[in-house]
Amino acid sequence: MSVENNLKALGITLPAAPAAVAAYAPWIRVGNLVITSGQLPWDGDTLGFTGKLGDELNEEQGYQAARLCAINAIAQLKAAVGKLDLIRQIVRLEGNVHSAPGFRGHPQVLNGASDLFNQTFGDRGRHTRTALGINEMPLDAPVQLSVWAEVLTGAEDTQPP
Amino acid sequence: MSVENNLKALGITLPAAPAAVAAYAPWIRVGNLVITSGQLPWDGDTLGFTGKLGDELNEEQGYQAARLCAINAIAQLKAAVGKLDLIRQIVRLEGNVHSAPGFRGHPQVLNGASDLFNQTFGDRGRHTRTALGINEMPLDAPVQLSVWAEVLTGAEDTQPP
Amino acid sequence: MSVENNLKALGITLPAAPAAVAAYAPWIRVGNLVITSGQLPWDGDTLGFTGKLGDELNEEQGYQAARLCAINAIAQLKAAVGKLDLIRQIVRLEGNVHSAPGFRGHPQVLNGASDLFNQTFGDRGRHTRTALGINEMPLDAPVQLSVWAEVLTGAEDTQPP
Repeated sequence: MSVENNLKALGITLPAAPAAVAAYAPWIRVGNLVITSGQLPWDGDTLGFTGKLGDELNEEQGYQAARLCAINAIAQLKAAVGKLDLIRQIVRLEGNVHSAPGFRGHPQVLNGASDLFNQTFGDRGRHTRTALGINEMPLDAPVQLSVWAEVLTGAEDTQPP
Repeated sequence: MSVENNLKALGITLPAAPAAVAAYAPWIRVGNLVITSGQLPWDGDTLGFTGKLGDELNEEQGYQAARLCAINAIAQLKAAVGKLDLIRQIVRLEGNVHSAPGFRGHPQVLNGASDLFNQTFGDRGRHTRTALGINEMPLDAPVQLSVWAEVLTGAEDTQPP
Repeated sequence: MSVENNLKALGITLPAAPAAVAAYAPWIRVGNLVITSGQLPWDGDTLGFTGKLGDELNEEQGYQAARLCAINAIAQLKAAVGKLDLIRQIVRLEGNVHSAPGFRGHPQVLNGASDLFNQTFGDRGRHTRTALGINEMPLDAPVQLSVWAEVLTGAEDTQPP
C-alpha cells in the first residue's frame, strides 16, 4: 500500500500544511500518537466553503467541505511523519458541523472526510468518529475536523518546527 | 471485582455492540487505550429517547438517555477487550447534550453515565469528563457519549472486525 | 526553565485545584498523559465570568475567562504531577466558547489560555487546539477548557486522591 499513490490516483495534490495561528501548533506528537489541531476547509489561502449546513450550504457542499478538511489534515500528518506510509492507523476523526436549526445530516457531511481516509489509507484508514452540531464556528467555517493518528513503532520522533 | 457481576446485580444485560455506520469503526485500540466512537442511546434498533433537553425532554429523561449511552459504550468496550475485568481504568467520558436555549442541567444529565461507570467499575470507573451543550445532534439524539478506557498491560491487542 | 518561577513573574498564585463534581475526577493519568476534565473560569468559589460571548461578554472578557480556565487547568496539572517542571509538553487545549448567534471571535478568546501556556511553559507550552462555539454551557460559563499534557518519562505514576 502507498498512501501517496492512492492520493495521486484520486487526483489529489496535498497542499502545504496550513500553519496554525501563532499561539498554537498545527500538530503535536505524543508517544506514537500524532494529534492535529482543528482543521478547516482551506483551499489555498481562502476557505473553500463558509456558512451553516441546512442554511447557506446543502449536504453535498458539506461533504466537499469535510473532504477539504481531511486533505488539510493529511497534509498535517505528512508534515508530522514525513512519509504517510509510516502511519499505522487513523485512530479518530472528531467532526464538528456548523449547523442551522433542525439540521440532521452530520453523518452524511462527515462521510466526506471518512470516505477519503478509507480510500487513501485502506484498512489503516478505519477510524472512530464523533459527529456534533455546533452553533457558531470560527471563521464561519462549515466543518472543523481534528485527527488522531498512530505512527508505526520505530518511526523517528518529531515535533513541529 | 467483577464488572460483569456488577452489571448483573443492576439487572443490565449488555446489548450487542451497536455497529457504526459503514464509513467508520465503533472502537479503535491504540497502545493501551480503547477509544469509542460517539455512542447514542440505542435501545435495540431504536433510540430510547429523542429531542432536546429543556424542550421535549426533562432532566430525568436525559439521565436515563445518558445511562443508555453508557450501556452501549460498555458493550463496545467488551467487544474491544473480551472481558471487562481487563479494563484498568475508565479515562474519560466526553458528554454532549442536545440542549434547547437556556438549558443548564448538563451535569445532572451526564451523571446518568458517570453513575453507571462508577457503580459497575468501582474505583476503576473514576473518569474525567467534559460536558457540552450542542445545538443540533445527529438523529435528534439527546446525548452523545464517547469513552476512553485504559486496558491492563498484557491484555491481547485487538482491532475491530 | 522553571514553570513555577514564570507563574510568579506573572503574579499568578495557583489556586487549590478545583474539585470536580462528585461523580467524576478532575484529572486522570494514563501512561505518560495527564488529561483534565473540562475546566471552568473559577475565581475562588465563584465563576469569574458568566454568560455568552457576543452577548453579555466581549472578547477581552472572554480572553480573561479563558486565562482563568488555564490557571485552573495548571493547578490540576500540578496536583497530578507534583512539580510542573515534570511536564514534557502541553499536547492539546480543547477550547469551547459559549457563543451568542453570530459570534466569531473564538480564536481571540482562546488565546487567553494559549498565551498563558506559552508564557509559563515556554517551548513545552506549544499545543494543538480545537476551538468550538457552544450554544448552552453548564453553569452559564463562557469558556470550558480541557488540557492534555505529557509527563516526562520516569515521573512517578499517580492517580487522583
